[in-house]
Amino acid sequence: MPEIHALSDNEKQQVRDELAKRIAGFRDEGLKLDMTRGKPGPDQLDLCNGLLTSVNARNFTSRDGVDSRNYGVLDGLAQAKELFAQYMGVIPEEIIIGGNSSLNMMFDTFAQLMTRGSSTRNTPWQGRKRKFICAVPGYDRHFTICEHFGIEMLNVDMTPDGPDMDAVEKLVKHDANIVGIWCVPRYSNPTGYTCSARTVERLASMPVKCPDFRIFWDDAYAVHFLGEQPDELANLLAACKKAGNAERVLMFGSTSKVSFPGAGIAMVAAASKNIAWLNERLFAQTIGPDKINMLRHVIFFKDMEGILHHMKRQARLLAPKFQALYSILSAELGGKGIAEWTSPRGGYFISLNTPDNCARKVVALAAELGVKLTPAGATFPYHKDPRDRNIRIAPTFPELNDLKKAAEVLAVCVQYVSLT
Amino acid sequence: MPEIHALSDNEKQQVRDELAKRIAGFRDEGLKLDMTRGKPGPDQLDLCNGLLTSVNARNFTSRDGVDSRNYGVLDGLAQAKELFAQYMGVIPEEIIIGGNSSLNMMFDTFAQLMTRGSSTRNTPWQGRKRKFICAVPGYDRHFTICEHFGIEMLNVDMTPDGPDMDAVEKLVKHDANIVGIWCVPRYSNPTGYTCSARTVERLASMPVKCPDFRIFWDDAYAVHFLGEQPDELANLLAACKKAGNAERVLMFGSTSKVSFPGAGIAMVAAASKNIAWLNERLFAQTIGPDKINMLRHVIFFKDMEGILHHMKRQARLLAPKFQALYSILSAELGGKGIAEWTSPRGGYFISLNTPDNCARKVVALAAELGVKLTPAGATFPYHKDPRDRNIRIAPTFPELNDLKKAAEVLAVCVQYVSLT
Repeated sequence: MPEIHALSDNEKQQVRDELAKRIAGFRDEGLKLDMTRGKPGPDQLDLCNGLLTSVNARNFTSRDGVDSRNYGVLDGLAQAKELFAQYMGVIPEEIIIGGNSSLNMMFDTFAQLMTRGSSTRNTPWQGRKRKFICAVPGYDRHFTICEHFGIEMLNVDMTPDGPDMDAVEKLVKHDANIVGIWCVPRYSNPTGYTCSARTVERLASMPVKCPDFRIFWDDAYAVHFLGEQPDELANLLAACKKAGNAERVLMFGSTSKVSFPGAGIAMVAAASKNIAWLNERLFAQTIGPDKINMLRHVIFFKDMEGILHHMKRQARLLAPKFQALYSILSAELGGKGIAEWTSPRGGYFISLNTPDNCARKVVALAAELGVKLTPAGATFPYHKDPRDRNIRIAPTFPELNDLKKAAEVLAVCVQYVSLT
Repeated sequence: MPEIHALSDNEKQQVRDELAKRIAGFRDEGLKLDMTRGKPGPDQLDLCNGLLTSVNARNFTSRDGVDSRNYGVLDGLAQAKELFAQYMGVIPEEIIIGGNSSLNMMFDTFAQLMTRGSSTRNTPWQGRKRKFICAVPGYDRHFTICEHFGIEMLNVDMTPDGPDMDAVEKLVKHDANIVGIWCVPRYSNPTGYTCSARTVERLASMPVKCPDFRIFWDDAYAVHFLGEQPDELANLLAACKKAGNAERVLMFGSTSKVSFPGAGIAMVAAASKNIAWLNERLFAQTIGPDKINMLRHVIFFKDMEGILHHMKRQARLLAPKFQALYSILSAELGGKGIAEWTSPRGGYFISLNTPDNCARKVVALAAELGVKLTPAGATFPYHKDPRDRNIRIAPTFPELNDLKKAAEVLAVCVQYVSLT
């Protein structure tokens, strides 16, 4: 079929009638499908069930003699630091292992900046107008943190190479109130893009007006490849050090989508001065994180090879879901000039753009037909997609047949709304 | 022996010589004993080893059908809320179950007050002079939180009935900058005192100038009795509601010293308006807490009876340690007019007062002899014990024989320093 906009009015009417018929058919099916969240499927979680009982009454003591059941160790078991330093591409002195949520660690880092200032200066962010750069479309929970703390958000486009660096450099050069940028550098939520080496280099070395500008580098999908190995990502901490801006970056990671989303372990990696600054707060905040759960992970995964092997098994479950989506989107929407979508090599999402001013209508129509999608606008600060066109597709949780049906409904809705 | 101060100079010299001999003896022994922290002993922790594997590949789904391994449920599994609402004396709607640390929950609540204000008004505490009342001697980590956020601390005495309420009422009546009070209401750290019903009633109903005054009620030792059952503690939330001050109190608890200190579960209980306010922040802070660990606890303990039964088994391990300490302190220091100490019916500490200006010297001398005690001053804000007399004794972690030796050394040091 040619581009929809090249059709005559008659032809358009014919297509619309056909789509209306299919929509009526979906309605009759009484569907109930949920594609809203980037949750692992139960089959993925089952691969990790051995983790549940990997620490028992005989092996709760760490290699260096720490009783993981008792108090102590503020920044993580040595064994866990060793393994996840490798995971994050740093040395063990540059990592803190925390609780079950990297989002929590990011939020707490924000709170520390708000109330106490940074490792570079003691001026709290609280009480003055502050702004943050957000690559869009992006991760809604990052934006929620900025909203919570009353930090104004500025959009820049997410490109296949990462945030639009021309725009970023222009913004940060003159405005001292722009205190940081959010970035998911690998298989970004929702586009699936990975930052290029050049983007990493520019982020590390760009001149910045704000003396304690911070890059929140949320490497949430570090090993979440769909093929045989992860995308290469240049090491931003190394690049920042090289550029003389070692404190500029805070890198976050977690096993939320490696082991268990509610019961994984989270981490932050940074230059030693930032680690010391984070530990100052941690000392006041807690006696220490859950060390038993760290030990569970170390015993279950053993080493980086163990993690990568595990992720390959996950990829075997996930790749068919992504493939099914690509096939359906191509078959239904390909060449029609009304939608474009990303085809990530990893991560948890696909980003779909409809024609302008259609995303809300598409999501609403799909909902009517029993297919719940992430609300339109969710991938933008303040839930405002300026072109109302972006839809985040989360293919991991539904079963394959449900997913196929949901994708078909979505694709039909996109066509129908585009023609209306 | 009579009171030391009733002795003649000659007699004093004789006692001093004898003590010096014993001190020389301790020195020769090359002791290495640590009485610094209120940590459970490994034997206590062993009672809980069944918890490590209580959730396995067959029972990770909660009673209400939640896959505890996956995302979701912001404020705690229903089963955990049910059990620990009983534990805290509230209804399930008045509790949030969090991560592994109640200290962390208290800190985060402070951060929320600092950055966003309270459930009563939106004025952040940050940016203006704020003061907090601290019952002394008290828990060092509470004071660290105030210091971290730059909140000035005001001492009031901890009495056998709780904080000196005459002093508290006088302070809060006129000073709008006094925003709250710390209190460990049951088996208080380090005195072991439990607040009387009258104290609870006065805290709930006292007139307060600050419109969002908050009582941080850290019920850390709710079921940590040494005998057959816990001390009765009147319910502060109920009393606050009755007095028309429902939002005044935030009650914290944890299983840190019920199950595992690093891997227990923590909770906050409060009136519904405060719970909603806390959940607002939680929504921005995390996708949710570790639900598997909640399920482990519910499966292992089953119900309140299970918890109380478990605590009786702990008491059987702890009571002999406390008894040994009381015996040695009585034998060495009783009737000499140089020291007084508390004899708690529960909790983790004993509070010892030396003559004024002696505590630092006693701790230093004991350290010289190989017995590490909690630093003098630690039980006061800013580490400043105005009379330099309070020493916190933590009898739970050392083995019984080590504990006896450490207590003897401590008692000899107190006598020797008092006579010097």
